[in-house]
Amino acid sequence: MRVLVLHGPNLNLLGEREPEVYGTQTLAELDAAIAAGAKELGIEVRCEQHNAEGAIVAALHAARTAYGGVVINPGAYAHYSYAIADAIAAIAIPVVEVHLSNIAAREPFRRNSVTAAACRGVVSGLGFTGYLLALRALAGMVA
Amino acid sequence: MRVLVLHGPNLNLLGEREPEVYGTQTLAELDAAIAAGAKELGIEVRCEQHNAEGAIVAALHAARTAYGGVVINPGAYAHYSYAIADAIAAIAIPVVEVHLSNIAAREPFRRNSVTAAACRGVVSGLGFTGYLLALRALAGMVA
Amino acid sequence: MRVLVLHGPNLNLLGEREPEVYGTQTLAELDAAIAAGAKELGIEVRCEQHNAEGAIVAALHAARTAYGGVVINPGAYAHYSYAIADAIAAIAIPVVEVHLSNIAAREPFRRNSVTAAACRGVVSGLGFTGYLLALRALAGMVA
Amino acid sequence: MRVLVLHGPNLNLLGEREPEVYGTQTLAELDAAIAAGAKELGIEVRCEQHNAEGAIVAALHAARTAYGGVVINPGAYAHYSYAIADAIAAIAIPVVEVHLSNIAAREPFRRNSVTAAACRGVVSGLGFTGYLLALRALAGMVA
Amino acid sequence: MRVLVLHGPNLNLLGEREPEVYGTQTLAELDAAIAAGAKELGIEVRCEQHNAEGAIVAALHAARTAYGGVVINPGAYAHYSYAIADAIAAIAIPVVEVHLSNIAAREPFRRNSVTAAACRGVVSGLGFTGYLLALRALAGMVA
Amino acid sequence: MRVLVLHGPNLNLLGEREPEVYGTQTLAELDAAIAAGAKELGIEVRCEQHNAEGAIVAALHAARTAYGGVVINPGAYAHYSYAIADAIAAIAIPVVEVHLSNIAAREPFRRNSVTAAACRGVVSGLGFTGYLLALRALAGMVA
Amino acid sequence: MRVLVLHGPNLNLLGEREPEVYGTQTLAELDAAIAAGAKELGIEVRCEQHNAEGAIVAALHAARTAYGGVVINPGAYAHYSYAIADAIAAIAIPVVEVHLSNIAAREPFRRNSVTAAACRGVVSGLGFTGYLLALRALAGMVA
Amino acid sequence: MRVLVLHGPNLNLLGEREPEVYGTQTLAELDAAIAAGAKELGIEVRCEQHNAEGAIVAALHAARTAYGGVVINPGAYAHYSYAIADAIAAIAIPVVEVHLSNIAAREPFRRNSVTAAACRGVVSGLGFTGYLLALRALAGMVA
Amino acid sequence: MRVLVLHGPNLNLLGEREPEVYGTQTLAELDAAIAAGAKELGIEVRCEQHNAEGAIVAALHAARTAYGGVVINPGAYAHYSYAIADAIAAIAIPVVEVHLSNIAAREPFRRNSVTAAACRGVVSGLGFTGYLLALRALAGMVA
Amino acid sequence: MRVLVLHGPNLNLLGEREPEVYGTQTLAELDAAIAAGAKELGIEVRCEQHNAEGAIVAALHAARTAYGGVVINPGAYAHYSYAIADAIAAIAIPVVEVHLSNIAAREPFRRNSVTAAACRGVVSGLGFTGYLLALRALAGMVA
Amino acid sequence: MRVLVLHGPNLNLLGEREPEVYGTQTLAELDAAIAAGAKELGIEVRCEQHNAEGAIVAALHAARTAYGGVVINPGAYAHYSYAIADAIAAIAIPVVEVHLSNIAAREPFRRNSVTAAACRGVVSGLGFTGYLLALRALAGMVA
Amino acid sequence: MRVLVLHGPNLNLLGEREPEVYGTQTLAELDAAIAAGAKELGIEVRCEQHNAEGAIVAALHAARTAYGGVVINPGAYAHYSYAIADAIAAIAIPVVEVHLSNIAAREPFRRNSVTAAACRGVVSGLGFTGYLLALRALAGMVA
Repeated sequence: MRVLVLHGPNLNLLGEREPEVYGTQTLAELDAAIAAGAKELGIEVRCEQHNAEGAIVAALHAARTAYGGVVINPGAYAHYSYAIADAIAAIAIPVVEVHLSNIAAREPFRRNSVTAAACRGVVSGLGFTGYLLALRALAGMVA
Repeated sequence: MRVLVLHGPNLNLLGEREPEVYGTQTLAELDAAIAAGAKELGIEVRCEQHNAEGAIVAALHAARTAYGGVVINPGAYAHYSYAIADAIAAIAIPVVEVHLSNIAAREPFRRNSVTAAACRGVVSGLGFTGYLLALRALAGMVA
Repeated sequence: MRVLVLHGPNLNLLGEREPEVYGTQTLAELDAAIAAGAKELGIEVRCEQHNAEGAIVAALHAARTAYGGVVINPGAYAHYSYAIADAIAAIAIPVVEVHLSNIAAREPFRRNSVTAAACRGVVSGLGFTGYLLALRALAGMVA
Repeated sequence: MRVLVLHGPNLNLLGEREPEVYGTQTLAELDAAIAAGAKELGIEVRCEQHNAEGAIVAALHAARTAYGGVVINPGAYAHYSYAIADAIAAIAIPVVEVHLSNIAAREPFRRNSVTAAACRGVVSGLGFTGYLLALRALAGMVA
Repeated sequence: MRVLVLHGPNLNLLGEREPEVYGTQTLAELDAAIAAGAKELGIEVRCEQHNAEGAIVAALHAARTAYGGVVINPGAYAHYSYAIADAIAAIAIPVVEVHLSNIAAREPFRRNSVTAAACRGVVSGLGFTGYLLALRALAGMVA
Repeated sequence: MRVLVLHGPNLNLLGEREPEVYGTQTLAELDAAIAAGAKELGIEVRCEQHNAEGAIVAALHAARTAYGGVVINPGAYAHYSYAIADAIAAIAIPVVEVHLSNIAAREPFRRNSVTAAACRGVVSGLGFTGYLLALRALAGMVA
Repeated sequence: MRVLVLHGPNLNLLGEREPEVYGTQTLAELDAAIAAGAKELGIEVRCEQHNAEGAIVAALHAARTAYGGVVINPGAYAHYSYAIADAIAAIAIPVVEVHLSNIAAREPFRRNSVTAAACRGVVSGLGFTGYLLALRALAGMVA
Repeated sequence: MRVLVLHGPNLNLLGEREPEVYGTQTLAELDAAIAAGAKELGIEVRCEQHNAEGAIVAALHAARTAYGGVVINPGAYAHYSYAIADAIAAIAIPVVEVHLSNIAAREPFRRNSVTAAACRGVVSGLGFTGYLLALRALAGMVA
Repeated sequence: MRVLVLHGPNLNLLGEREPEVYGTQTLAELDAAIAAGAKELGIEVRCEQHNAEGAIVAALHAARTAYGGVVINPGAYAHYSYAIADAIAAIAIPVVEVHLSNIAAREPFRRNSVTAAACRGVVSGLGFTGYLLALRALAGMVA
Repeated sequence: MRVLVLHGPNLNLLGEREPEVYGTQTLAELDAAIAAGAKELGIEVRCEQHNAEGAIVAALHAARTAYGGVVINPGAYAHYSYAIADAIAAIAIPVVEVHLSNIAAREPFRRNSVTAAACRGVVSGLGFTGYLLALRALAGMVA
Repeated sequence: MRVLVLHGPNLNLLGEREPEVYGTQTLAELDAAIAAGAKELGIEVRCEQHNAEGAIVAALHAARTAYGGVVINPGAYAHYSYAIADAIAAIAIPVVEVHLSNIAAREPFRRNSVTAAACRGVVSGLGFTGYLLALRALAGMVA
Repeated sequence: MRVLVLHGPNLNLLGEREPEVYGTQTLAELDAAIAAGAKELGIEVRCEQHNAEGAIVAALHAARTAYGGVVINPGAYAHYSYAIADAIAAIAIPVVEVHLSNIAAREPFRRNSVTAAACRGVVSGLGFTGYLLALRALAGMVA
């Protein structure tokens, strides 16, 4: 099984950005943890990070034939990008949304995810572990 | 008269994406229908599809000197892109908004179009025909 | 094909009423334009104007067996008449809603049309042309 | 005891209109059922159907001296006609509101009835039976 | 000067309807008071009462050539009839809105008048006197 | 046919509690009236009163095999208990909601019933009679 | 009869302030017109203008024994001063609210008057005449 | 490590209740799957189901000394029980919220979880697997 | 005089629960302080703590004959339990609501108390002292 | 200990103003009761009444060095005066808010106090006693 | 050029009031900084501080002939004083609004300034420097 | 000191776009004015214009090591781009937001800036001068 992991805007600054919220580990470290976890699950994984909404839409489109599933952390786009929500709904493969922090416990605008409604499920607030759990969920859906 | 037809995000998946809403014909088929209709009306037409908001803004800017009018289907951007709305307001040529589905009959967030307020008019819910009607309207405005 | 064109309240004052919004042409001139356009499309058309909500409901009911489609400009009723919306939903023939002005660019209460949700589609902001485009759309649906 | 049964807009299309919501029986069949039920209760009943808001207001006014109670199904007017609500409040005889479908389980705009507040009570979602129950309630109030 | 006084729905029940709000005098008595007051001001007055929204729209249309001004008590239509508001805006003669009770001190839905925005002014809460004051205001506008 | 009648919180104080709203008859008197009415309809009835939300959920669960239908007066829980709404939706037997007072004419928070949407229908504002009408409605559904 | 006329904040700039809204006549001219009108009605009148909310509250308090009625133009305080509303409610003499412009036709925040609910009635949009009509209304209440 | 799994209201009907939403497997089957998964993770697990809000509050209180973490599916209480939210916040051990269905894709009232804000994280829409992922997350937090 | 003090959900964890908000003293210490204060006032007091909404409703019912007044801290139920509000309204003895913390200065959902409207008064933000002040207030009402 | 008692707008009319809400005792009687109660508590008290928002702000400023605490009844200013709220937050001494009537049980606008959030606590609905309880609370805070 | 600097309520406590938000420098120090900056720009400046809304209105009125521009920090009045907004709109000289803290990053009620709409521009969040920038802006407008 | 000036979408059309709002000077002229002003302040400045949200996010990221501060005019993105807001919050250098027009005096959607909350401050409505004032503010922060 092949899975695409899509990191949204500002995640390239992980480890440096608001560490009290997002921790001190970097995106490279997160991707390494994902790679290790995927390997354990027998999943072939590829990680991409995009700051541009249109690039995320395009990546989702491309994934629909090349991957069996997607793990997406839409970052702030989760809260207003109906274009990304439409892209998720447009493709047949399962998509699971991940948030590092517990968005239910943050600013009001972060409590609603418009992209989540188009996904199969959501894992929120569980840090790096959340990505690994999402991989595991995809493995169970497709396998 | 020259008209630019701008297709927004996810329209490249037409025919494959939620066919119960958008039908089974592809974007290529839509563009062919537009080309045929335009020819009949004596309009020189060019069709572009962009997933990125910034690219749509740029295309609108470029159109202001190269075209006599624009037909735009902003897709999901219709519901939140004030940047595209500002771009439409910023250019002097007439712009007509088109939606394949009847956005008044869908999810609440789709019922309001922030870009429509900057356009001359809107054609919604009439499928491929909507594009041809918009071309016709532009022809009447400019001719 | 036979089509009923229903003009809602205050449209009898067309040409005289707020000409900066609705233009200086009269309802008679509009009906003449519609007749001419219909003839060109091989459509048999009849135009009626009603100020009363109940009369519009009744006209829609009557149309369901006598006409193949309806073009309706519900005027201000578009914004609150669930009775007219129910009448449109109650009949099997296709109905297309038309507004002379671009309701998305006017007062907040005009931006939402409760009747539009029951129609096949909407043409807004394109003046007299809008009626002709709606006829054309109906022709395509039924033909 | 004499009771007026007032059917609001679009109920004349009963049986033909959205049968998955309102069933396949016609208004004539409903009125026959009401007549039969009324007879059993010793009630003299008269049924009227009006599409016009003003006609319903007038019928309520007229009923205040000619009838001992009213059963009203205001149809869509229930959701916005303060004029009908005022007419119900203006007359001394008891009025009971009936809805064929369970308005609490339908579109948001149907969940609030502005006329209900002026009535003695409401029966909703119980189909034809609802009218008979309303008659029975009126019989109990007046007898 | 000729002035049309338009009484809206349920005002025909004046004196009998919720007397603790609207008093015990009848519409005939109100019209007599208006006639007397008009005479004193040298105004030729005609009073009409309509329960139907469409009839009020039509009366306003007719008044635009036959009268120099209108006093309107739209009753409950004040709170939702954009059709009447449009009719007032569509005619050139001045219109003054009157309410017998102080609508600012009643139920929330009565606190907003959508027709008032299209009128020259509003007199509210001053009972029968309000009509006479409105006549006086019209006299000053036109004289 | 066996029917369970479920009285919600505070109904045990009937007759003593806000008698200007709920009357002076006690719950025992209500249950006696229900028993008499049920007997007349050939219905075997059992009445329970619970102040606890969880107890009402449990009683609904238990009813699904032991009864053919339920009459429920959820009291104040009607306005916020999604747990009870879910319980009603979870069981296959028909449930009819009853309110002694006309909730459409009371405080704003009482105008919306979240449990009503899961029921077959609602009878509101008709006092003790409402329960008997609900029994009759259930008899018609199941018989 | 003695009447106090209270002008609220910014009315001292009348004639100079936004003349397209409030006209070019000054407060002195308004007060002269009021004096003339009052004389004609046999009313003894005193005009005061206050920019401070507390001063208006105090003036209302003082008026309760010294005057038989008050005409108040609360200016912008109408839209938020519950302290002035409470002061109006606290005194037994009748108070009529006046606005020079038609507040129903201006910015949204001006459409609601919290002070109006505590007054006997409101005259809005009728310019200087509005004050004279309010005097006349008071004369009728007290006389 | 010892973990308490708390199932909220109506989950005892799992398999029977709205199977198109919640599937056809029973609570016993879910608990067996949880037990198997826990064993694999070296977690000692206990599953409880409560329909009563107060019982869930009490179970959370008791868990604070007896368990190292809690997996909770608050069912409908998630959407309004601030009492349960306070109980989660009151105890020091980590709590992870689970929903079988994707609450972001259901009725509006289900899109907001007031209990989620007090939890460490949320897993939603991933069916039975969601519970196992939550156990895994707790294992990682405490281990 | 006999007074019942009702502590709502989670108050059993006082001293341990969010001590930065609620302090470090336990419920036993609070009850001791209440007992001491009551003794001083010549009040016979009994303290109960309930996590279940239904139990609080029942305790209020029972109190109506056994006590002369109630001090209630409804905890989180204050913000949504219309059932408890109805119970307070249903009993004739005076009830005073107490909150340890100043609910006006906390999360938005805590700023509104639906139970407070049914009480005689509220004491909020004054810690343990608040209970003693409430006792004193009750003493003054009944004595 | 020295305490300032600040009475807000319209409280000078106590006893005369809406006695069904505020009682028939005057401000002088209230101040006498406060003086007596303060004496008993060994508190030196001074009472002031101000109708002007700015005067209340200034009095709070002055109090910060001259008094050990403030009891404030902001009257209607409680519902909108962020200036007074800022003044309370700006000074270090404790402030307790008092309302004679139970603001939770009155008009919607009175249910929210913007000044309360800046105070230590609130006592509402307990009449004159409320002031004495607030003094007692301050005594406990400072002593 | 002469400029009036108007400090609103509570700014007299600058340096002492919530220093974590507003800093530790006093109003005297701010006025000295303004004087120094003004001198450098060749502006004659006068600083006033008022806690009363009416005094700010009056100061704006007086400034219209005596000064060429105004710098105003309306403090909390920015969020609700339509009277001050009207005063700014009533005078012809340019007014620039200043806030020491970044109101966009504070409590929700501070995010909206009703006075800003009447000003030429706003400088927010830049501390003492903000006043100097506003002076500079005025210099550019008038010079 | 080095400062990056970021112009958002549609600013490339400055001088041509809605000149009644934004003036007739071009972006090149603005950049020249910025360069001149920066030179005077001893600031090394670079100006970039981007129509794409992702490009603005990336530019902010890049600036965090290359510049000492940023002046940003997010254009329409100010009103909905939480991605840009997050990028501003993610970088340590100070950012000041500038708007050419006074956004508080324009359409409702422009009155709220979601990016402003992440900035140090905002300068709005002061045209080209606003950029120079922002540079000056940054100079003061960093110097």
